[in-house]
Amino acid sequence: MPDNMLDEFAPIFYPKSHAVIGASSDPRKFGGRVLQVLLAFGYSGRLYPVNPQESEVQGMKTYASVKDLPEAVDFASIAVPAPVVPGVVAECLERGVKAVQVLSAGFREAGEEGARLEKALAETAAKGIRIVGPNCFGVYSPDGGITILPGATLPKESGPVGFISQSGGYAIRVPRRAEGFGIRFSKVVSYGNACDINECDLLEYFYQDPQTKIITGYIEGVRDGPRFFKLLQEVCRTKPVILWKGGLTEGGARAVQSHTASMGGQEQIWDAVFRQSGAIRVTGLEELLDTVLAFLHLEPQTGRRVCPVGGGGGIGVAASDSCERMGLEVPVFPVELQQKLMSIVPAAGASARNPVDVGNPGPPPPLLRAAMETVAVEADIDIIIVDEIDMTMMARPGDSTAQSSGPISERAQVPVDVRNKFGKSVVVVMPVEAIGTDVLESEGARRRVCDYYLEQGIPVYLTLERAARALVNFTGYHRHNRVLSS
Amino acid sequence: MPDNMLDEFAPIFYPKSHAVIGASSDPRKFGGRVLQVLLAFGYSGRLYPVNPQESEVQGMKTYASVKDLPEAVDFASIAVPAPVVPGVVAECLERGVKAVQVLSAGFREAGEEGARLEKALAETAAKGIRIVGPNCFGVYSPDGGITILPGATLPKESGPVGFISQSGGYAIRVPRRAEGFGIRFSKVVSYGNACDINECDLLEYFYQDPQTKIITGYIEGVRDGPRFFKLLQEVCRTKPVILWKGGLTEGGARAVQSHTASMGGQEQIWDAVFRQSGAIRVTGLEELLDTVLAFLHLEPQTGRRVCPVGGGGGIGVAASDSCERMGLEVPVFPVELQQKLMSIVPAAGASARNPVDVGNPGPPPPLLRAAMETVAVEADIDIIIVDEIDMTMMARPGDSTAQSSGPISERAQVPVDVRNKFGKSVVVVMPVEAIGTDVLESEGARRRVCDYYLEQGIPVYLTLERAARALVNFTGYHRHNRVLSS
Repeated sequence: MPDNMLDEFAPIFYPKSHAVIGASSDPRKFGGRVLQVLLAFGYSGRLYPVNPQESEVQGMKTYASVKDLPEAVDFASIAVPAPVVPGVVAECLERGVKAVQVLSAGFREAGEEGARLEKALAETAAKGIRIVGPNCFGVYSPDGGITILPGATLPKESGPVGFISQSGGYAIRVPRRAEGFGIRFSKVVSYGNACDINECDLLEYFYQDPQTKIITGYIEGVRDGPRFFKLLQEVCRTKPVILWKGGLTEGGARAVQSHTASMGGQEQIWDAVFRQSGAIRVTGLEELLDTVLAFLHLEPQTGRRVCPVGGGGGIGVAASDSCERMGLEVPVFPVELQQKLMSIVPAAGASARNPVDVGNPGPPPPLLRAAMETVAVEADIDIIIVDEIDMTMMARPGDSTAQSSGPISERAQVPVDVRNKFGKSVVVVMPVEAIGTDVLESEGARRRVCDYYLEQGIPVYLTLERAARALVNFTGYHRHNRVLSS
Repeated sequence: MPDNMLDEFAPIFYPKSHAVIGASSDPRKFGGRVLQVLLAFGYSGRLYPVNPQESEVQGMKTYASVKDLPEAVDFASIAVPAPVVPGVVAECLERGVKAVQVLSAGFREAGEEGARLEKALAETAAKGIRIVGPNCFGVYSPDGGITILPGATLPKESGPVGFISQSGGYAIRVPRRAEGFGIRFSKVVSYGNACDINECDLLEYFYQDPQTKIITGYIEGVRDGPRFFKLLQEVCRTKPVILWKGGLTEGGARAVQSHTASMGGQEQIWDAVFRQSGAIRVTGLEELLDTVLAFLHLEPQTGRRVCPVGGGGGIGVAASDSCERMGLEVPVFPVELQQKLMSIVPAAGASARNPVDVGNPGPPPPLLRAAMETVAVEADIDIIIVDEIDMTMMARPGDSTAQSSGPISERAQVPVDVRNKFGKSVVVVMPVEAIGTDVLESEGARRRVCDYYLEQGIPVYLTLERAARALVNFTGYHRHNRVLSS
């Protein structure tokens, strides 16, 4: 392993030239799709389709074989049937191709014959060519102009999040789902069976990559447990690593076997890995993205004392339940502070012990502002959670309390102002109120406000449970590192 | 307690005449809002605003006092300051009003003086008038033409679900959030401090109410534990009772104290109540609605053997993990069945051990159909879970696999056909792919398909975790009842 992974992997993530081996003129065919997706994504390097049967595919001149390529390309996508792949990769090595991604399946995961083919690939890799895959969707690297197999419409802008995925499906689903949350990626790698480049190599790459600030991963199993653990410990000291480990239940482990044929590993071992390395464990796609949002937008902190601010007493009860169940603290406010808050929120039935109940889900903006400012300045808490306050409501006839200014209502502006003015961490919970097509307009209004908060660097969550879990993950990482450094 | 709660509570849920005491001409004021909401909802009985200062409010003739009402009305909404309420309710009793809802707050939850006022209310109730509240949002009963305080836009059609809520906030949030899932209510009651009508009375009412098939509740504490438990046991034998108990954490219990001042109760006691009564415990609004969907649409069953059908191997791993963590079983299929399924799904990398991986999230409809039919007929499972298959994709140029027929794609039709043809329980998981405003159109497409599934009686869930939890809740109820009857 070279000291500098950045140089080693540059041909993969920033290929100046790219061959598509098995490129077809029919975009419904596998090799045709690979080429089509690269073209649609707008790859701007030198692109060479390789196809022995056709002289032109999708408007491009083809090359009959790897040997005929006009240059030793940085990278090649291989989309030919599995039995042919080892020969093609050997040719690539010979032609001076620096790295390949084998998108074809039918290797170790498919039985003995496939395992034999994969072994041949690994042997070729050892001779001096790097291989991503086989049985994968490849690499998405927006700044390198390349995208994974079905990722033609993924964002062209890059961001600070790296994603290592043993699953092709999640390699596409995670960045796609993340898009609406304003989360952008430096690189996503679907590494499949990992005959050469594996989770450790990628973890090391992202560790060194200055573009990547937050490392995420979906992992089913690791090849070299001790190396992975040691690396994880080191990486976590400077960059958070958010890992979704699949296959920890009996059925999940069975599914892993037929998916990437890696060893799932026992839950107890993984428990220890997470506890001792400081890596952040998540159990699903939603939790992964929710946790990323916290790391993206909140200042590093270890405090778990929160103040949920909501409208309606039952909401305060549920907020306390949710926060404490997840591991946050909802400290009772001193009597003086309670009294001060109650003078701001005079509604009978409201409460200010913490959570703070502002009386109803649509409070007048000045009231919400005064309550939040008082909490920000005087309460001994770390994070304010604005819980299910209706931020989408615009001015209605006869309703003087909901004046809008531009597309963002005065009420929706309050959390942003409080965060800016006092530097207090603020997160917002905004549920999807309904799923019917009839209310798509109100969903549009909700999303506009969400987008605004995300632009402003305020994490938005769909439920308080999800917010609380993300905050526990986030503060847990910083706690672990503080203990290490103390 | 009369044998027939239906007659006793008819004036509350189906009032032929209704007085609004404290009705104001200003809809921003409390009493003005109560009247406005009733008018907007379209109450069609005889409506009498009571206001001593004005002769007309919101275009209606007013009455100076309760004594002046032209008839002994069935029901009255009371929206006057707390100190005045006991006198007003006493007048109502005298005038022959059968029941009232006290929407005003400022009673037991507000301290000693409020407790004294509430005691006076309870004493009046004992003399022959039923009281909902105080400190509540009142009653929503679409067939009776009445709605809770901020519920002018709730659906006018009724349905089979009853909801008992100690929280006013949830009394509005639950039916509003439920609307998009096609869930409709027989009645929703926000009963607040329960000075007279309490959770037991309402449970008994819903038990007797032929319109209510599924009983749901948000409860912070109960007054008469033994009665509640005994009743719950009895009710659960014929109607499912889905309860969200708020305030089970320390912070939650504290919030309960300042919300409705009821005793939260210890978690262990509630554990036993749920275990022994067969009531279904949920911990939040989402789980409550998810569970209702299962009861609404699935045939009673106790089997927990599921077959997740998804596209992409990683998704199969996550599906197994999620299902087994929640308590479902994902049994391995016999080798013959695996082979048969693999002949249908020839993609390398796909798996048919269970979960069944159809290769990619957008499988050709005939392939999905053949795989699901084979599972429905030959697999020894109870429920098929269609997991994150893209149902919204319409025909694209050059894509022969996604032919649409009308607004519902051929692929989206498959789960409906399989359920209809084989009577096998099918549920569908369709996540919100993104939250940005830019993809609102695709969210619209998703919702159209969701609406279609719900119309067709197929429950739709946002995540597999939520589907699995709802199915465990649903099958757990029927298991409990089967054990009792065996």
